[in-house]
Amino acid sequence: MKRYRNGEIWNFESQTPAARDGSAGVILGVDGGATSTVCVCLVAAMPSAGPLPESLPILSRAVAGCSNHNSVGETAARKTLEEVMAEALSKACSSRAAVQAVCLAVSGVNHPTDQQRILDWLRDIFPSHVKFYVENDSVAALASGTMGKLHGCVLIAGTGTIAYGFTEDGREARAAGAGPVLGDWGSGYGIAAQALTAVIRAHDGRGPQTKLTENILNILGLSSPDELIGWTYADPSWARIAALVPVVVSSAEDGDEVANKVLYVAVQELVDSVIAVVRRLRLCGEDGKDPFPLVMVGGVLEANKRWDIGKEVINRISKVCPGAHPIRPKP
Amino acid sequence: MKRYRNGEIWNFESQTPAARDGSAGVILGVDGGATSTVCVCLVAAMPSAGPLPESLPILSRAVAGCSNHNSVGETAARKTLEEVMAEALSKACSSRAAVQAVCLAVSGVNHPTDQQRILDWLRDIFPSHVKFYVENDSVAALASGTMGKLHGCVLIAGTGTIAYGFTEDGREARAAGAGPVLGDWGSGYGIAAQALTAVIRAHDGRGPQTKLTENILNILGLSSPDELIGWTYADPSWARIAALVPVVVSSAEDGDEVANKVLYVAVQELVDSVIAVVRRLRLCGEDGKDPFPLVMVGGVLEANKRWDIGKEVINRISKVCPGAHPIRPKP
Repeated sequence: MKRYRNGEIWNFESQTPAARDGSAGVILGVDGGATSTVCVCLVAAMPSAGPLPESLPILSRAVAGCSNHNSVGETAARKTLEEVMAEALSKACSSRAAVQAVCLAVSGVNHPTDQQRILDWLRDIFPSHVKFYVENDSVAALASGTMGKLHGCVLIAGTGTIAYGFTEDGREARAAGAGPVLGDWGSGYGIAAQALTAVIRAHDGRGPQTKLTENILNILGLSSPDELIGWTYADPSWARIAALVPVVVSSAEDGDEVANKVLYVAVQELVDSVIAVVRRLRLCGEDGKDPFPLVMVGGVLEANKRWDIGKEVINRISKVCPGAHPIRPKP
Repeated sequence: MKRYRNGEIWNFESQTPAARDGSAGVILGVDGGATSTVCVCLVAAMPSAGPLPESLPILSRAVAGCSNHNSVGETAARKTLEEVMAEALSKACSSRAAVQAVCLAVSGVNHPTDQQRILDWLRDIFPSHVKFYVENDSVAALASGTMGKLHGCVLIAGTGTIAYGFTEDGREARAAGAGPVLGDWGSGYGIAAQALTAVIRAHDGRGPQTKLTENILNILGLSSPDELIGWTYADPSWARIAALVPVVVSSAEDGDEVANKVLYVAVQELVDSVIAVVRRLRLCGEDGKDPFPLVMVGGVLEANKRWDIGKEVINRISKVCPGAHPIRPKP
């Protein structure tokens, strides 16, 4: 196993009893995004024979920050992943020797080379018998809404956004999920960046006045829109920008036209992503009316009161694909 | 004087003869942007009495990379500024002891606190008698087109973009210059990011097919739009993205509709910035026809052949402000 520079991460293992022969072993499941990363440690299988239970018992759960390498860089993302897996194992009074499989579903896995880099890195950390599964986090998100079946479309809209779809015969397609530079305008980051842009435009005379100015400056403790420039670039983390979404939503609920426009543009972006995936995979069949699950997850789709972004997205998608069956898994 | 961690920067001074009593001394002028930074070393004044010449003799010129702290971070930006000033002094066979004044005009100076931080840092580097002038680079750009007079409007469109204006009685206003997160869509970065976004959208079914896909992948040596995501976030430098502008321009010249749309949107953004400044300062007078200089600088406005972004910008501005007198200083 790898001797990590920050070796303290795995120090707890010296206090962990070695896995006994015949003991069940554990599985690590990681769901990593641009804001937070969750790792659960599950019992791998029951030691006695018999049918498997509907869900495997969860031994422990650990939470950490961003593990999207495109947002915080590869070193920070890996440190977060390693720490959250170690914490979950430590809480379960287990160790790497007991791990049978690791399933990592993280945002930022967009290409086979991303997958390969993470696999190589996992092999350095864990014993050679461990099985690895590395996927984009949207795969886990879809499975969370369909009881594990990979069929249908999932829309994630948190700090980032992606739409991912699977057919029953194994074809897949995605839209968006390319990060803020490449136009993910339906993401939490996209919504907040558009709102900040609207404040700058109102300030320098290129756009209409908006309540977003007062509301955003208040929450950030700034006194002038000029100060937003320094604030924005002081820390490039996507999650820090996306944390402004609730201010945009409340400004829209208070009737601010600019904030409402920002949200409606974001809704259409999210709808476009889902429709693009559904069309490419023909999830709604030849007549456009076939039923398919549409799993919707992420803070942008969940945390609203009167202005419900998720509901608006469903309304618009239903007009094009009446067979879309929205599922919102419990967080 | 500061003992810099990277002390080698100023090592050359031990070989420089001390400034003689009565010698003229020198002035350092720095023009810093998100792609490159230029420092010139000038003779401060003629040792003999008499009228000043039209332009002060340039002793040396040094060129370095990005000095915008919002793009590359404060440490890298300061290192670039310090190195380019040292190189100019070294080439002029001079030293910090001979410096009478430093005029730093750098992009990323958006707020009095930005100015103050740079002033404090300069005081650490130079002897106590040196005078300092720290401004946004648009001030130097305007002066470069008006023979030093601060009146009129300047539009910079390089890696970044800003419009800055001054009235004859000293009022000033600006528009844009807030960086890519805050919507500088007329910048080189903005144009390239919109083109990259169009490639992603064509690829995942959200947008029309475009020649930009083949042209951009070719120039970057990539084989699929999926690889653009990794390429984009491998290095966050704004200049690296903006370097794709010539591909967008040539794609537009070849008749690609998507590339043409990207450029027309950018032109309108640049026009909006200038008009916002002109209106706030009433540079075109009560009847809208007063003459004023419009200085235009930066790679986006210069480097075009058939598709001339600068010319399009001037055409549209002239319709609103017929008194705008475009000036394109030699680079």
